[in-house]
Amino acid sequence: MTQFIGVAEMAILVRTIGTERFLADLAGYIREDFLRWPDFEKMARIASHSRNGVIELMPASDAALYGFKYVNGHPANTKAGLLTVTAFGVLSDVGTGYPLLISEMTLLTALRTAATSAMAAVALARKDARTLALVGTGAQSEFQALAMKTLIGIEAVRIYDPDPRAMDKFERNLRGAGLDIIRCGSAREAVRGADIVTTATAVKGRAAVLTPDMLEPGMHINAIGGDCPGKTELHPDVLAAGKVFVEFPPQTRIEGEIQQMPADFAVTELWDVLAGNAAGRVSQTDITVFDSVGFAIEDFSALRFVRDLTETAGDLDLIPAMADPKDLFALLQSSSRAVRTVEPLAPAA
Amino acid sequence: MTQFIGVAEMAILVRTIGTERFLADLAGYIREDFLRWPDFEKMARIASHSRNGVIELMPASDAALYGFKYVNGHPANTKAGLLTVTAFGVLSDVGTGYPLLISEMTLLTALRTAATSAMAAVALARKDARTLALVGTGAQSEFQALAMKTLIGIEAVRIYDPDPRAMDKFERNLRGAGLDIIRCGSAREAVRGADIVTTATAVKGRAAVLTPDMLEPGMHINAIGGDCPGKTELHPDVLAAGKVFVEFPPQTRIEGEIQQMPADFAVTELWDVLAGNAAGRVSQTDITVFDSVGFAIEDFSALRFVRDLTETAGDLDLIPAMADPKDLFALLQSSSRAVRTVEPLAPAA
Repeated sequence: MTQFIGVAEMAILVRTIGTERFLADLAGYIREDFLRWPDFEKMARIASHSRNGVIELMPASDAALYGFKYVNGHPANTKAGLLTVTAFGVLSDVGTGYPLLISEMTLLTALRTAATSAMAAVALARKDARTLALVGTGAQSEFQALAMKTLIGIEAVRIYDPDPRAMDKFERNLRGAGLDIIRCGSAREAVRGADIVTTATAVKGRAAVLTPDMLEPGMHINAIGGDCPGKTELHPDVLAAGKVFVEFPPQTRIEGEIQQMPADFAVTELWDVLAGNAAGRVSQTDITVFDSVGFAIEDFSALRFVRDLTETAGDLDLIPAMADPKDLFALLQSSSRAVRTVEPLAPAA
Repeated sequence: MTQFIGVAEMAILVRTIGTERFLADLAGYIREDFLRWPDFEKMARIASHSRNGVIELMPASDAALYGFKYVNGHPANTKAGLLTVTAFGVLSDVGTGYPLLISEMTLLTALRTAATSAMAAVALARKDARTLALVGTGAQSEFQALAMKTLIGIEAVRIYDPDPRAMDKFERNLRGAGLDIIRCGSAREAVRGADIVTTATAVKGRAAVLTPDMLEPGMHINAIGGDCPGKTELHPDVLAAGKVFVEFPPQTRIEGEIQQMPADFAVTELWDVLAGNAAGRVSQTDITVFDSVGFAIEDFSALRFVRDLTETAGDLDLIPAMADPKDLFALLQSSSRAVRTVEPLAPAA
């Protein structure tokens, strides 16, 4: 049977473990998989663009497990009370092709994105970084703040969002989280004095949320909002001023901030820094940029982590259990002798 | 909420409607989508090959709906009592990116493959075809026989499988189905005198189940078993002797029987025949070959059909229902005020 983790179950799982611990452990899984990067079959995600948004499939596999995520991005959804980004994922056994786990990934994607951001910041930000600027306090912002607190030791968060209610929400959700929250009147004000700047806006088009005059020596930029063709957050001169790190160049060149740059613009693969194959930050004054678009291996790691956490979760009646695997047709006979375990008609037990 | 159709529910659905009626109606949906072929975003499926088999994602979309199927092919699975091919699929709303339906597709793939085969045979076989040869009586065979009976008027089925138990199973499952079943001692014997020949074997490698000396004037060949690189069922001279029809050439040239032929080997797209853009069979003595590998639009049609049949099926807790779509984090708070409908912890209600 295929294991199923729904939204409510994922929420309880995270609450039970604790969000910060979940983020830290998840970052460990992602790091483990980044360190064995060459073991994976990788491809740029497969995107289907439409007038309102995009639907993507993101597969990744190693010799033992195959994972993929389904994810959409529809900026106008919030107007209808729907999420901009929703996702679910599947982890399968490469040996048999059978799906082991289907999981909600709307929550899990926010968690894995934050865990990846913080994992990258551990490698790229200054060791003494204590202040985070968050430009955009939408659905991902609290996860970003908590991951940076847990993995980096961030103490203060300077926030800005054009929607004051989004900032209210951020303050409300992180009250008591042990972070000093400073509400700012502009992106420029939020960025001032920050050690790490996370841009996480949902605006369509070329946004230039961050311009070169806002940069300060030693800053680490964590750009997570620009993640599809035509959608960028950083002024191109920010990229030119910093050293740029990416997940999987063939995907980032299409979707990331560097889509604004020439095709041969120099980037460093993050996994190479983690593995010690390439230099990350070399001085206290370097400006480092993690041009993050979200890569399938991060989702693979997240599914692997959830599977390890939840071996006992409920099952889903997705794949037939057969007495004779050549006798598919017998499933249609009322005696159902082909089905080893009798399943209820209702979805899952 | 996302609608869920599990294996047991699909089986009951098919039994309730009746397998032949289900196949006929499904063929109607597939035909409808083939007739509007240019409306679809199409791509060759995305395959991940491993030592034991393959895992594939098959997306297709129009302006309103996006569908994809996950399917594996692992020939050695039957030795472990598992299915060679299992599948599930998702149908989503292009406007919001939200998944509408997750369905088992192990059964549904067998049904849509048979419905597609019969739909193609209606266009390509002789109108007076009454005898079907089935080489290979594995998991798909009964569906093939019933679809050909319902859509073409097949009265007799000549079967051969090297595994006598597979033939026993076929005879048992179709007893009383109104077909005259003739058990044969070889593929050659089965093919003799048949109007339509369906090859549906699971052997790996270049099999040449059908050689040119077995062909008779006017035969329609429905080749469904050769469907991945290195796996073919027809001798290349069978292809050279007939007129070859395919689903989506970029995929079929990689996976189909025509992988044995030069890259410019002439083929006709089936949709062009259905739409009246290209000729199909032009004489009673033509040999026609449908080199079928299974294409994503057929799965899209099948999901669309199932969705129309089952508006009232059970729901799956896959995507969060949000009070404030920017407040993903609130899902993690024990009060769960972000969740509009309170979901049970167990997977689905």
